[in-house]
Amino acid sequence: MFWRVIGATAAILTMFSFVPQIARSLRTRSVKDVSPVTLFQLSTGVFLWIIYGIYLKDPIIITANLVTLASLAVLLFLYFKYGRQACR
Amino acid sequence: MFWRVIGATAAILTMFSFVPQIARSLRTRSVKDVSPVTLFQLSTGVFLWIIYGIYLKDPIIITANLVTLASLAVLLFLYFKYGRQACR
Repeated sequence: MFWRVIGATAAILTMFSFVPQIARSLRTRSVKDVSPVTLFQLSTGVFLWIIYGIYLKDPIIITANLVTLASLAVLLFLYFKYGRQACR
Repeated sequence: MFWRVIGATAAILTMFSFVPQIARSLRTRSVKDVSPVTLFQLSTGVFLWIIYGIYLKDPIIITANLVTLASLAVLLFLYFKYGRQACR
């Protein structure tokens, strides 16, 4: 039970970790300090974690990384929408 | 062997995913578009993944998240060093 709580808390915190970043980017409409290499590299890595989680049959790893991948996709969309604009 | 490669690639990509963000922040000396909530939330989550990885006795989960935690610590340091400066 204790370990399920640890795993679930880890999963919840990391799976929703980019939600504040999405909120900030939507509010400021600026993403120029965000590294696109980090976004692409993390998306690829998280995708492979999903595959690895399927192999391990670990629902926590699979679910957590699916949500992270979805939020990274939103961030990448915002990155290209707002572009590397100059400051306002 | 195939699954080890998938897991190792996932680990390498995600563990070093914030290195490009660190490089960008060092180069631009600007972090104003980076969400500090995301940095703190992700650091806490990654720490708990390490604990969960120790429980699962999975060296890939442990090592990957240790490196991520270290790079997030560097990013947090840069965030407070450069502050939420206005654009230059």
